[in-house]
Amino acid sequence: MERSALILCYSGFEEIEALTVVDVLRRAGVAADICSVEGKEYIRGSHGIEIRADKSFGAGEKEVGSYDCVVLPGGLPNAYLLRDDPEVIDCVKNFYASGKLVCAICAAPCVLEKAGLLKGRRATSYPGMVDKASCGEYIAENAVQDGNIITSRGPGTALQFSFAILRAMGLGLDADKLEKGMIVKG
Amino acid sequence: MERSALILCYSGFEEIEALTVVDVLRRAGVAADICSVEGKEYIRGSHGIEIRADKSFGAGEKEVGSYDCVVLPGGLPNAYLLRDDPEVIDCVKNFYASGKLVCAICAAPCVLEKAGLLKGRRATSYPGMVDKASCGEYIAENAVQDGNIITSRGPGTALQFSFAILRAMGLGLDADKLEKGMIVKG
Repeated sequence: MERSALILCYSGFEEIEALTVVDVLRRAGVAADICSVEGKEYIRGSHGIEIRADKSFGAGEKEVGSYDCVVLPGGLPNAYLLRDDPEVIDCVKNFYASGKLVCAICAAPCVLEKAGLLKGRRATSYPGMVDKASCGEYIAENAVQDGNIITSRGPGTALQFSFAILRAMGLGLDADKLEKGMIVKG
Repeated sequence: MERSALILCYSGFEEIEALTVVDVLRRAGVAADICSVEGKEYIRGSHGIEIRADKSFGAGEKEVGSYDCVVLPGGLPNAYLLRDDPEVIDCVKNFYASGKLVCAICAAPCVLEKAGLLKGRRATSYPGMVDKASCGEYIAENAVQDGNIITSRGPGTALQFSFAILRAMGLGLDADKLEKGMIVKG
Protein backbone atom coordinates (compact mmCIF):
# COMPACT_ATOMS: atom_id res chain seq x y z
CA MET A 1 0.00 0.00 0.00
CA GLU A 2 1.26 3.45 -0.87
CA ARG A 3 2.29 5.55 2.11
CA SER A 4 1.36 9.22 2.28
CA ALA A 5 2.51 12.30 4.14
CA LEU A 6 1.08 15.77 4.61
CA ILE A 7 3.62 18.59 4.93
CA LEU A 8 2.00 21.63 6.54
CA CYS A 9 3.52 24.98 5.55
CA TYR A 10 2.79 28.60 6.20
CA SER A 11 4.82 31.36 4.54
CA GLY A 12 8.27 31.51 6.07
CA PHE A 13 8.82 27.73 6.15
CA GLU A 14 12.49 26.69 6.16
CA GLU A 15 13.22 25.53 2.64
CA ILE A 16 15.85 22.86 3.35
CA GLU A 17 13.73 21.33 6.10
CA ALA A 18 10.48 21.21 4.13
CA LEU A 19 11.88 20.22 0.74
CA THR A 20 14.43 17.66 1.91
CA VAL A 21 11.57 15.71 3.48
CA VAL A 22 9.45 15.94 0.32
CA ASP A 23 12.40 14.93 -1.92
CA VAL A 24 13.43 11.94 0.23
CA LEU A 25 9.88 10.68 0.84
CA ARG A 26 9.00 10.88 -2.86
CA ARG A 27 12.19 9.00 -3.76
CA ALA A 28 10.88 6.18 -1.55
CA GLY A 29 7.48 6.22 -3.28
CA VAL A 30 5.63 8.05 -0.49
CA ALA A 31 2.93 10.44 -1.75
CA ALA A 32 4.20 13.60 -0.04
CA ASP A 33 1.88 16.58 -0.40
CA ILE A 34 2.98 20.14 0.36
CA CYS A 35 -0.05 21.78 1.95
CA SER A 36 -0.46 25.55 2.17
CA VAL A 37 -2.28 26.09 5.44
CA GLU A 38 -3.22 29.63 4.44
CA GLY A 39 -4.58 28.30 1.13
CA LYS A 40 -2.15 29.99 -1.26
CA GLU A 41 -1.13 28.37 -4.53
CA TYR A 42 2.45 29.62 -4.09
CA ILE A 43 4.18 29.98 -0.74
CA ARG A 44 7.44 31.73 0.07
CA GLY A 45 10.05 30.22 2.35
CA SER A 46 12.12 32.04 4.97
CA HIS A 47 14.97 32.49 2.45
CA GLY A 48 12.82 33.80 -0.37
CA ILE A 49 12.35 30.58 -2.33
CA GLU A 50 8.79 30.42 -3.64
CA ILE A 51 7.28 26.98 -4.21
CA ARG A 52 3.99 25.70 -5.50
CA ALA A 53 1.79 23.99 -2.93
CA ASP A 54 0.20 20.68 -3.93
CA LYS A 55 -2.96 21.50 -2.01
CA SER A 56 -4.50 23.78 0.55
CA PHE A 57 -5.70 23.02 4.07
CA GLY A 58 -9.25 24.10 3.24
CA ALA A 59 -10.60 20.62 2.77
CA GLY A 60 -10.29 20.13 6.53
CA GLU A 61 -9.35 17.47 8.98
CA LYS A 62 -11.47 14.78 7.41
CA GLU A 63 -9.26 14.80 4.33
CA VAL A 64 -5.96 15.12 6.18
CA GLY A 65 -7.07 12.08 8.18
CA SER A 66 -6.37 9.94 5.11
CA TYR A 67 -2.61 10.51 5.42
CA ASP A 68 -0.23 8.23 7.30
CA CYS A 69 1.89 11.07 8.59
CA VAL A 70 1.94 14.80 9.22
CA VAL A 71 5.22 16.74 8.95
CA LEU A 72 5.86 20.23 10.35
CA PRO A 73 8.94 21.99 8.95
CA GLY A 74 10.59 24.82 10.88
CA GLY A 75 11.42 28.32 9.76
CA LEU A 76 9.95 31.55 11.05
CA PRO A 77 7.28 32.79 11.04
CA ASN A 78 6.00 29.41 9.77
CA ALA A 79 6.49 27.52 13.06
CA TYR A 80 4.78 30.22 15.13
CA LEU A 81 1.90 30.51 12.64
CA LEU A 82 1.40 26.73 12.78
CA ARG A 83 1.50 26.82 16.61
CA ASP A 84 -1.03 29.63 16.81
CA ASP A 85 -3.54 28.07 14.38
CA PRO A 86 -6.20 26.10 16.32
CA GLU A 87 -7.04 24.04 13.22
CA VAL A 88 -3.41 22.95 12.91
CA ILE A 89 -3.36 22.02 16.61
CA ASP A 90 -6.55 19.98 16.13
CA CYS A 91 -5.11 18.33 13.04
CA VAL A 92 -1.91 17.33 14.82
CA LYS A 93 -3.88 16.00 17.82
CA ASN A 94 -6.09 13.97 15.48
CA PHE A 95 -3.08 12.39 13.76
CA TYR A 96 -1.60 11.59 17.15
CA ALA A 97 -4.82 10.12 18.54
CA SER A 98 -5.17 7.91 15.44
CA GLY A 99 -1.68 6.47 16.06
CA LYS A 100 -0.33 8.14 12.93
CA LEU A 101 3.13 9.66 12.72
CA VAL A 102 3.53 13.26 13.90
CA CYS A 103 6.88 14.75 12.87
CA ALA A 104 8.40 18.17 13.56
CA ILE A 105 11.82 19.71 12.98
CA CYS A 106 13.78 22.75 14.18
CA ALA A 107 11.35 25.39 15.55
CA ALA A 108 8.25 23.30 14.79
CA PRO A 109 8.34 21.03 17.86
CA CYS A 110 6.85 24.11 19.60
CA VAL A 111 3.62 23.14 17.80
CA LEU A 112 3.70 19.71 19.43
CA GLU A 113 4.48 21.33 22.79
CA LYS A 114 1.42 23.59 22.40
CA ALA A 115 -0.69 20.54 21.52
CA GLY A 116 0.55 18.83 24.68
CA LEU A 117 2.06 15.93 22.75
CA LEU A 118 5.59 16.08 24.18
CA LYS A 119 4.50 15.22 27.74
CA GLY A 120 6.38 12.16 28.90
CA ARG A 121 8.13 11.88 25.53
CA ARG A 122 11.77 11.86 24.50
CA ALA A 123 12.09 14.73 22.03
CA THR A 124 14.39 17.34 20.53
CA SER A 125 14.14 20.68 18.69
CA TYR A 126 16.26 23.63 17.59
CA PRO A 127 18.06 24.77 20.76
CA GLY A 128 15.72 26.87 22.91
CA MET A 129 12.60 26.27 20.82
CA VAL A 130 10.71 24.17 23.35
CA ASP A 131 10.60 24.29 27.13
CA LYS A 132 12.57 21.21 28.20
CA ALA A 133 10.14 20.78 31.08
CA SER A 134 7.34 20.16 28.56
CA CYS A 135 9.03 16.90 27.43
CA GLY A 136 9.57 13.66 29.30
CA GLU A 137 13.24 13.89 28.30
CA TYR A 138 14.85 16.52 26.10
CA ILE A 139 17.71 15.07 24.00
CA ALA A 140 20.17 16.95 21.76
CA GLU A 141 20.18 14.21 19.09
CA ASN A 142 19.64 14.78 15.39
CA ALA A 143 16.48 12.70 15.04
CA VAL A 144 14.52 11.33 17.98
CA GLN A 145 11.60 8.90 17.74
CA ASP A 146 9.38 8.09 20.70
CA GLY A 147 6.28 6.16 19.74
CA ASN A 148 4.57 7.98 16.90
CA ILE A 149 6.38 11.29 17.54
CA ILE A 150 9.55 12.14 15.57
CA THR A 151 11.47 15.36 16.27
CA SER A 152 14.64 16.83 14.81
CA ARG A 153 16.93 19.86 15.25
CA GLY A 154 17.53 22.00 12.17
CA PRO A 155 18.41 22.23 8.45
CA GLY A 156 21.60 20.23 9.03
CA THR A 157 19.58 17.31 10.41
CA ALA A 158 16.82 17.33 7.76
CA LEU A 159 18.17 14.27 5.93
CA GLN A 160 18.35 12.23 9.15
CA PHE A 161 14.83 13.42 10.03
CA SER A 162 13.58 12.25 6.62
CA PHE A 163 15.20 8.81 6.94
CA ALA A 164 13.77 8.45 10.47
CA ILE A 165 10.30 9.10 9.01
CA LEU A 166 10.83 6.46 6.31
CA ARG A 167 11.99 3.91 8.89
CA ALA A 168 8.99 4.64 11.13
CA MET A 169 6.76 4.02 8.08
CA GLY A 170 8.33 0.58 7.66
CA LEU A 171 10.45 1.71 4.73
CA GLY A 172 13.82 0.95 6.31
CA LEU A 173 15.20 -0.83 3.26
CA ASP A 174 14.40 2.20 1.09
CA ALA A 175 16.03 4.45 3.70
CA ASP A 176 19.20 2.33 3.69
CA LYS A 177 19.31 2.36 -0.12
CA LEU A 178 18.70 6.12 -0.32
CA GLU A 179 21.34 6.92 2.29
CA LYS A 180 23.86 5.32 -0.06
CA GLY A 181 22.34 6.54 -3.33
CA MET A 182 22.07 10.13 -2.13
CA ILE A 183 25.66 10.03 -0.79
CA VAL A 184 24.61 10.57 2.80
CA LYS A 185 26.61 7.55 3.88
CA GLY A 186 29.43 5.83 2.03
CA MET B 1 30.92 44.28 -1.20
CA GLU B 2 27.97 41.99 -1.69
CA ARG B 3 28.82 38.65 -3.25
CA SER B 4 26.54 37.13 -5.89
CA ALA B 5 25.89 33.73 -7.37
CA LEU B 6 23.98 32.50 -10.41
CA ILE B 7 22.31 29.10 -10.07
CA LEU B 8 21.56 27.66 -13.51
CA CYS B 9 18.59 25.30 -13.67
CA TYR B 10 16.70 23.44 -16.33
CA SER B 11 13.59 21.42 -15.51
CA GLY B 12 14.56 18.29 -13.65
CA PHE B 13 17.08 19.97 -11.33
CA GLU B 14 17.68 18.13 -8.05
CA GLU B 15 15.77 20.10 -5.42
CA ILE B 16 17.98 19.48 -2.38
CA GLU B 17 21.12 20.33 -4.36
CA ALA B 18 19.81 23.54 -5.90
CA LEU B 19 17.86 24.88 -2.94
CA THR B 20 20.37 24.04 -0.20
CA VAL B 21 22.92 26.21 -2.02
CA VAL B 22 20.43 29.08 -2.40
CA ASP B 23 19.34 28.83 1.25
CA VAL B 24 22.90 28.72 2.65
CA LEU B 25 24.28 31.45 0.37
CA ARG B 26 21.38 33.80 1.16
CA ARG B 27 21.87 33.19 4.90
CA ALA B 28 25.42 34.50 4.41
CA GLY B 29 24.18 37.59 2.55
CA VAL B 30 25.12 36.38 -0.93
CA ALA B 31 22.67 37.48 -3.65
CA ALA B 32 21.83 34.02 -5.02
CA ASP B 33 19.66 34.07 -8.13
CA ILE B 34 17.87 31.00 -9.43
CA CYS B 35 18.07 31.26 -13.21
CA SER B 36 15.76 29.33 -15.52
CA VAL B 37 17.91 28.56 -18.54
CA GLU B 38 14.86 27.72 -20.63
CA GLY B 39 13.26 31.02 -19.60
CA LYS B 40 10.30 29.71 -17.62
CA GLU B 41 8.89 31.60 -14.66
CA TYR B 42 8.29 28.33 -12.79
CA ILE B 43 10.54 25.29 -13.07
CA ARG B 44 9.90 21.77 -11.85
CA GLY B 45 12.54 19.72 -10.07
CA SER B 46 13.26 16.02 -10.53
CA HIS B 47 11.00 15.16 -7.57
CA GLY B 48 8.08 17.29 -8.67
CA ILE B 49 8.74 20.40 -6.56
CA GLU B 50 7.94 23.48 -8.60
CA ILE B 51 9.82 26.68 -7.74
CA ARG B 52 9.78 30.21 -9.02
CA ALA B 53 12.90 31.30 -10.91
CA ASP B 54 14.36 34.69 -9.99
CA LYS B 55 15.35 35.34 -13.60
CA SER B 56 15.80 33.79 -17.00
CA PHE B 57 18.97 33.20 -18.98
CA GLY B 58 17.75 35.34 -21.87
CA ALA B 59 19.75 38.42 -20.92
CA GLY B 60 22.86 36.53 -21.97
CA GLU B 61 26.44 36.12 -20.92
CA LYS B 62 27.07 39.82 -20.49
CA GLU B 63 24.68 39.91 -17.59
CA VAL B 64 25.76 36.65 -16.04
CA GLY B 65 29.30 38.08 -16.16
CA SER B 66 28.40 40.38 -13.27
CA TYR B 67 28.15 37.45 -10.85
CA ASP B 68 31.01 36.17 -8.68
CA CYS B 69 30.07 32.55 -9.06
CA VAL B 70 28.08 30.13 -11.20
CA VAL B 71 26.53 27.03 -9.62
CA LEU B 72 25.26 23.97 -11.48
CA PRO B 73 22.97 21.66 -9.49
CA GLY B 74 22.52 18.04 -10.50
CA GLY B 75 19.36 16.12 -11.19
CA LEU B 76 18.23 14.64 -14.48
CA PRO B 77 17.48 15.70 -17.11
CA ASN B 78 18.78 19.07 -15.83
CA ALA B 79 22.49 18.13 -15.87
CA TYR B 80 22.32 16.72 -19.40
CA LEU B 81 20.32 19.70 -20.66
CA LEU B 82 22.93 22.07 -19.17
CA ARG B 83 25.74 20.01 -20.75
CA ASP B 84 24.11 20.00 -24.16
CA ASP B 85 23.38 23.75 -24.25
CA PRO B 86 26.20 25.61 -26.06
CA GLU B 87 25.24 28.88 -24.32
CA VAL B 88 25.65 27.26 -20.91
CA ILE B 89 29.03 25.86 -21.96
CA ASP B 90 30.09 29.34 -23.13
CA CYS B 91 28.83 30.88 -19.89
CA VAL B 92 30.75 28.41 -17.73
CA LYS B 93 33.93 28.93 -19.79
CA ASN B 94 33.56 32.70 -19.42
CA PHE B 95 33.21 32.48 -15.65
CA TYR B 96 36.25 30.22 -15.55
CA ALA B 97 38.35 32.45 -17.80
CA SER B 98 37.49 35.46 -15.62
CA GLY B 99 38.82 33.64 -12.55
CA LYS B 100 35.32 33.43 -11.07
CA LEU B 101 34.06 30.42 -9.16
CA VAL B 102 32.59 27.55 -11.18
CA CYS B 103 30.74 25.03 -8.99
CA ALA B 104 28.96 21.80 -9.89
CA ILE B 105 27.43 18.98 -7.85
CA CYS B 106 26.27 15.39 -8.44
CA ALA B 107 25.62 14.84 -12.17
CA ALA B 108 26.54 18.42 -13.13
CA PRO B 109 30.33 18.07 -13.17
CA CYS B 110 29.62 16.47 -16.59
CA VAL B 111 29.01 20.04 -17.79
CA LEU B 112 32.51 21.05 -16.66
CA GLU B 113 33.92 17.94 -18.31
CA LYS B 114 32.24 18.89 -21.59
CA ALA B 115 33.65 22.44 -21.26
CA GLY B 116 37.12 20.93 -20.78
CA LEU B 117 37.52 22.55 -17.35
CA LEU B 118 38.39 19.41 -15.38
CA LYS B 119 41.66 18.79 -17.24
CA GLY B 120 44.52 18.65 -14.76
CA ARG B 121 42.13 19.37 -11.88
CA ARG B 122 41.27 17.50 -8.72
CA ALA B 123 37.52 16.96 -8.92
CA THR B 124 34.61 14.78 -7.88
CA SER B 125 31.02 14.02 -9.00
CA TYR B 126 28.19 11.54 -8.45
CA PRO B 127 29.78 8.10 -9.00
CA GLY B 128 30.09 7.40 -12.72
CA MET B 129 28.98 10.85 -13.89
CA VAL B 130 32.32 11.97 -15.31
CA ASP B 131 35.08 10.05 -17.04
CA LYS B 132 37.84 9.91 -14.43
CA ALA B 133 40.38 10.29 -17.23
CA SER B 134 38.96 13.76 -17.97
CA CYS B 135 40.22 15.04 -14.58
CA GLY B 136 43.73 15.51 -13.29
CA GLU B 137 42.74 13.48 -10.25
CA TYR B 138 39.30 12.07 -9.45
CA ILE B 139 38.60 12.05 -5.70
CA ALA B 140 35.62 10.54 -3.85
CA GLU B 141 35.42 13.41 -1.34
CA ASN B 142 32.26 15.32 -0.48
CA ALA B 143 33.47 18.75 -1.65
CA VAL B 144 36.63 19.31 -3.66
CA GLN B 145 38.12 22.70 -4.50
CA ASP B 146 40.94 23.10 -7.01
CA GLY B 147 41.58 26.72 -7.93
CA ASN B 148 38.27 28.27 -8.96
CA ILE B 149 36.54 24.93 -9.55
CA ILE B 150 34.43 23.36 -6.79
CA THR B 151 32.78 19.97 -7.28
CA SER B 152 30.65 17.79 -5.04
CA ARG B 153 28.90 14.40 -5.03
CA GLY B 154 25.15 14.37 -4.38
CA PRO B 155 22.19 15.53 -2.29
CA GLY B 156 23.85 14.25 0.88
CA THR B 157 26.86 16.51 0.28
CA ALA B 158 24.93 19.67 -0.69
CA LEU B 159 25.53 21.40 2.64
CA GLN B 160 29.29 20.78 2.48
CA PHE B 161 29.26 21.98 -1.14
CA SER B 162 27.50 25.19 -0.06
CA PHE B 163 29.97 25.87 2.76
CA ALA B 164 32.90 25.23 0.40
CA ILE B 165 31.46 27.89 -1.93
CA LEU B 166 31.16 30.39 0.95
CA ARG B 167 34.75 29.72 2.03
CA ALA B 168 36.03 30.15 -1.53
CA MET B 169 34.20 33.52 -1.61
CA GLY B 170 36.11 34.61 1.49
CA LEU B 171 33.10 34.06 3.74
CA GLY B 172 34.71 31.47 5.98
CA LEU B 173 33.54 33.09 9.21
CA ASP B 174 29.94 33.03 7.98
CA ALA B 175 30.38 29.39 6.96
CA ASP B 176 31.69 28.49 10.44
CA LYS B 177 28.81 30.32 12.09
CA LEU B 178 26.18 28.74 9.81
CA GLU B 179 27.55 25.24 10.30
CA LYS B 180 26.79 25.66 13.98
CA GLY B 181 23.56 27.66 13.58
CA MET B 182 22.11 25.22 11.06
CA ILE B 183 23.07 22.23 13.26
CA VAL B 184 25.43 20.78 10.69
CA LYS B 185 28.20 20.58 13.26
CA GLY B 186 27.90 20.56 17.04
